[in-house]
Amino acid sequence: MTIGFDILARDGAARLGRLTTAHGVIETPVFMPVGTAATVKAMTPDAVALTGARLVLGNTYHLMLRPGAERIAALGGLHRFMNWPHAILTDSGGFQVMSLAALRKITEEGVAFRSHLDGSRYLLTPERSVEIQRLLGSDITMAFDECTPFPAERGQVEESMELSMRWAERSRAAFEPRPGQGIFGIVQGGVHPDLRERSAARLVGIGFEGYALGGLAIGEGQQTTFAMVEATVPYLPQDRPHYLMGVGKPSDIVGAVRRGVDMFDCVLPTRSGRTGQAFTRAGTLNLRNARHADDPAPLDAQCRCPACTGFSRAYLHHLTKAGEILGSMLLTTHNLTYYADLTADLRAAIREGRVAEFELAGDAR
Amino acid sequence: MTIGFDILARDGAARLGRLTTAHGVIETPVFMPVGTAATVKAMTPDAVALTGARLVLGNTYHLMLRPGAERIAALGGLHRFMNWPHAILTDSGGFQVMSLAALRKITEEGVAFRSHLDGSRYLLTPERSVEIQRLLGSDITMAFDECTPFPAERGQVEESMELSMRWAERSRAAFEPRPGQGIFGIVQGGVHPDLRERSAARLVGIGFEGYALGGLAIGEGQQTTFAMVEATVPYLPQDRPHYLMGVGKPSDIVGAVRRGVDMFDCVLPTRSGRTGQAFTRAGTLNLRNARHADDPAPLDAQCRCPACTGFSRAYLHHLTKAGEILGSMLLTTHNLTYYADLTADLRAAIREGRVAEFELAGDAR
Repeated sequence: MTIGFDILARDGAARLGRLTTAHGVIETPVFMPVGTAATVKAMTPDAVALTGARLVLGNTYHLMLRPGAERIAALGGLHRFMNWPHAILTDSGGFQVMSLAALRKITEEGVAFRSHLDGSRYLLTPERSVEIQRLLGSDITMAFDECTPFPAERGQVEESMELSMRWAERSRAAFEPRPGQGIFGIVQGGVHPDLRERSAARLVGIGFEGYALGGLAIGEGQQTTFAMVEATVPYLPQDRPHYLMGVGKPSDIVGAVRRGVDMFDCVLPTRSGRTGQAFTRAGTLNLRNARHADDPAPLDAQCRCPACTGFSRAYLHHLTKAGEILGSMLLTTHNLTYYADLTADLRAAIREGRVAEFELAGDAR
Repeated sequence: MTIGFDILARDGAARLGRLTTAHGVIETPVFMPVGTAATVKAMTPDAVALTGARLVLGNTYHLMLRPGAERIAALGGLHRFMNWPHAILTDSGGFQVMSLAALRKITEEGVAFRSHLDGSRYLLTPERSVEIQRLLGSDITMAFDECTPFPAERGQVEESMELSMRWAERSRAAFEPRPGQGIFGIVQGGVHPDLRERSAARLVGIGFEGYALGGLAIGEGQQTTFAMVEATVPYLPQDRPHYLMGVGKPSDIVGAVRRGVDMFDCVLPTRSGRTGQAFTRAGTLNLRNARHADDPAPLDAQCRCPACTGFSRAYLHHLTKAGEILGSMLLTTHNLTYYADLTADLRAAIREGRVAEFELAGDAR
């Protein structure tokens, strides 16, 4: 069996699900912390698990460059390498090769590029991307796609989507099924509902264990993101997981869950934590702000995380101002706990049939 | 009662002791991790305690500038501020005002200087240093002293030592005894045995709860450091703790313990951890070295710490090369565990009368 997915409850378009992988069972809707370079930045794996997370994302592009997929495979795979016994989803490298690599050249075959680290040459193809993800030991492999720039002319978006669909077919063919592992296709089509529908139909024709929405949350605005989710989800198999890639702010997640999305990833809680921003039930706080300097209150009195139970806003302000690593550690811990609790609250709301009335406590400003 | 100190066993000049403070009992010889800015860098307080540490050092100079002693006092003191329920020793600011502050001017009254952070003006006197340490809630206050430069002419060393002795008297007078808290005097005198002896005699005449050796390990070399310890310890009360400030490498600690020293602090294990250096029973390792890239072995197979039980040298190499915060976290955890275990092993050796034969497994190269 590949990835299992059971829907336990529905509330409108929202679904409460259970994803079964080779490395454990995950309840959905779920938020995946981003572990780019085989580490969720500023967190031990134990601390990540304590936030409630049981599924993290790894980046194919970063890992293929450093330390290298073959090396990680020789060391026993990514789970063992980073000491994370729970599930891992890997992206395909398609997005980051476009945003980070130098001297990219896209052909039907794939993307030739130079490493942003040392300038060495690589060719990433659907087959190689899937092979890297197999070497890493990923529980959920993503099909290799082209990240369509935004904004772009409709003709360019269509051409890019069609290329991604051909690459999706090659990715599916290259994927070797293993117990508890699966591959997801990625819907493209920019902000054009008909292209999204056509892309979804193409992927469903190929057949995947799950379906992602790619190329969104890159500047088109929340309303358009939601419109594209609405234009896509009805054309996806309802018994398979739906994953909105790179999303997002808390309100993005609530809105997308209401529209039938089950999975999310984003650097926002981790990156924000390293720059002094905290998500709380009373809204976001910038800990660099001098108004916190004398405040003995915790970040969020309702939060169960070690940063909130052990430390004051005054202390977190001090750490942030002083550039202390512990500031990044504690704020990342808090933000990931906030996201884990947000999705747990959404799951409870779906179970209880009140997701339409779900009130978001706090959002990124 | 102030600080309690009981000697449980002796082995030559070495002593196994028990230090009783307002925040717990500490076995000596003990190594104190340095928590400069109200945090042991890259460590949560829980992780520090897991290494075995129950006594950390805080820096008066850093804390008076940011976030400020009165602010910490208003927030409940340093223990609460940094969520460290165990004991804290604070230095007096004397050493760091000389090494970090700008536009210093030393008079009989104290040291006028400008902050290295924002240029604002401060005056640090024995009375103010002791007051700051009281505001922080320190378990062990250090007398304010002048850090004599090295090398220096004998006349300059003597003058500086005499000033420090007058300041020691003022520090003692300014200190308000509280249960489980005490103040230590600091022997100065550079590399001159007779000045060290005279300084020790002056401090014993004033009377302190413990005695430190200052102005050492600043370039004079290990043999000279040991010679100064031998020239000083016999003139200190044998029923009080002896603290060698800013020391040191593992072999420095072993040699000083054999000569009657009970307490140590040094940034070496924490700072090294942030630059990829690990102390192990097989010597020091530089994790940046490419020879670790494919090594599945732990840092130190005999080590109990989370870095050694959970991760390979290959992974730690990867984190160090990639500049990942987790690399600093894991290597600091390991190095502090190494130091905690080294002092635990020394305590066992003293108890068993074999400290002369104690073989150091690994040292900084």
